[in-house]
Amino acid sequence: MTTILFAAGSKRWAEYETPLRRALDALGLDYTLSPETDDPAQVDYIIYAPNPSLHDFTPLTNAKAVLSLWAGVERIVGNETLTMPLARMVNDGMTEGMVEWVVANVLRHHLGLDRYVLNPTREWAPRVPPLARDRKVAVLGLGALGQACAKGLAGMNFDVTGWSRSRKDIAGITCLSGDDGLAQTLARAEILVLLLPLTADTENLLNAKRLAQMPAGAVVINPGRGPLIDDDALLAALDSGHIAHATLDVFRKEPLPADHPYWAHPKVTVTPHIASDFRTDSAAQVIAENIRRGEAGEPLLHLVDRGAGY
Amino acid sequence: MTTILFAAGSKRWAEYETPLRRALDALGLDYTLSPETDDPAQVDYIIYAPNPSLHDFTPLTNAKAVLSLWAGVERIVGNETLTMPLARMVNDGMTEGMVEWVVANVLRHHLGLDRYVLNPTREWAPRVPPLARDRKVAVLGLGALGQACAKGLAGMNFDVTGWSRSRKDIAGITCLSGDDGLAQTLARAEILVLLLPLTADTENLLNAKRLAQMPAGAVVINPGRGPLIDDDALLAALDSGHIAHATLDVFRKEPLPADHPYWAHPKVTVTPHIASDFRTDSAAQVIAENIRRGEAGEPLLHLVDRGAGY
Repeated sequence: MTTILFAAGSKRWAEYETPLRRALDALGLDYTLSPETDDPAQVDYIIYAPNPSLHDFTPLTNAKAVLSLWAGVERIVGNETLTMPLARMVNDGMTEGMVEWVVANVLRHHLGLDRYVLNPTREWAPRVPPLARDRKVAVLGLGALGQACAKGLAGMNFDVTGWSRSRKDIAGITCLSGDDGLAQTLARAEILVLLLPLTADTENLLNAKRLAQMPAGAVVINPGRGPLIDDDALLAALDSGHIAHATLDVFRKEPLPADHPYWAHPKVTVTPHIASDFRTDSAAQVIAENIRRGEAGEPLLHLVDRGAGY
Repeated sequence: MTTILFAAGSKRWAEYETPLRRALDALGLDYTLSPETDDPAQVDYIIYAPNPSLHDFTPLTNAKAVLSLWAGVERIVGNETLTMPLARMVNDGMTEGMVEWVVANVLRHHLGLDRYVLNPTREWAPRVPPLARDRKVAVLGLGALGQACAKGLAGMNFDVTGWSRSRKDIAGITCLSGDDGLAQTLARAEILVLLLPLTADTENLLNAKRLAQMPAGAVVINPGRGPLIDDDALLAALDSGHIAHATLDVFRKEPLPADHPYWAHPKVTVTPHIASDFRTDSAAQVIAENIRRGEAGEPLLHLVDRGAGY
């Protein structure tokens, strides 16, 4: 009997209990699944998202793994009591949802669709954009999500450059890396998509200096992590006109506070962290598969490198 | 020496002369190209778009072909003086532009992006859409543009049904045809894309009866031809709420008159015939290639079937 603790808050328990039981049953596992435990030493696996009910992992002396419901683990990796293997959430549903959101928003800016959606003056004023093959798009971060988005954009014929800390090689994508590579990538990014993990190195990566390296009139799209952007620097670049628009899905504080300048800014579109939301069925299947692997002595999927932070 | 008459109006002549000469020169053709002629019997090829300067083709006694600058030829095929072979415009740039516009607008409605672009109340209200693989999209018309769009949508994982008068077979697309097929296609179309040619059979195809066959809350997207839609029926279906939104790029009269109800309707987005605009370089290459073929005795590309009307 495998003991599984669901430590991700009561709201998520309501969403996840049924999909998780369905996924665990489908794999034929013999388990108990509960949002609480009387005996932490009995727990084999912890399904986790940061929440007030569990911060100290010390009593969970026999846990074989912590399985994050989130793709980003920056609020987890610093927890020194969490010494057992930690797996991130990576699932097809999240990846597909992210590709859809990214391609939709890149196309929206590429074609200038907002002009027609808003069109307060009801003006017949055609502006023919270049073809996607003549539009330079850059993706910062070439992890699972970044690669999938870069490929999806290339599939729509965009001229895509991808940047990552360590050099990648992806068919159809110009791959750059390192500091020089970042400057080159930014210099050609008419539309920039941020899909980096949040680490000490990437916090405020898009600061005033790097925004200035982008071409005038460029668009910033951030479905990655809020703190990748220096918010004051972005607002200044929008106000100066150097950056034409920002579409932001993630923020330092969520929900974005009602008085945050992003809400009222005419050159900012706020989407409420929908780019890659949990598709519970799909996420539950990933969790169940990792528990099956753990019990079968097979390596877990999507293990976090604690040194790298993701 | 091949004599080419450019009969598409002086505004287009200004746009096309340079790209055409470049394309004709690149193929090594020996030609004269002019927007007028003193001796119509000398003209070998007519580059054409409907315009007041040429309606009677009778004097052009030796013309080998009329090469349309437009993809839609419904304003040309009825001209009984035009008895020589007629070729439509089909070019990669137009097709790519159309695919970009269609995929952009299908994704926009699929993800409900307008809610966030407009967001007058600045509300943090996430609504997670289904994945594209669970979204049923239908494309009416499977000519060059319709097929390319259906494939582009399938490439983004949408569940795509395509309908055409005569049965087609396209990998990854559920292809239906005939009257029964049309009813089935409409019944499953959460998002409907109109890419039919305009003929006597397709005028007002999307009428009240057929709108009623669509699922409640469906979206209509028309980058094809304005008269495919019965405008009064569509406005009634939008007002009743049966159709949630219409994004329209083409209209019976263009520019859309300032007092047309589409402009002010909160459930209508008007785009000013931008879905597949002429990319002059690309169009000029198609025209030049057809002239080369005609002079070499090779079959012309994209010949119109006068009986079918497209």
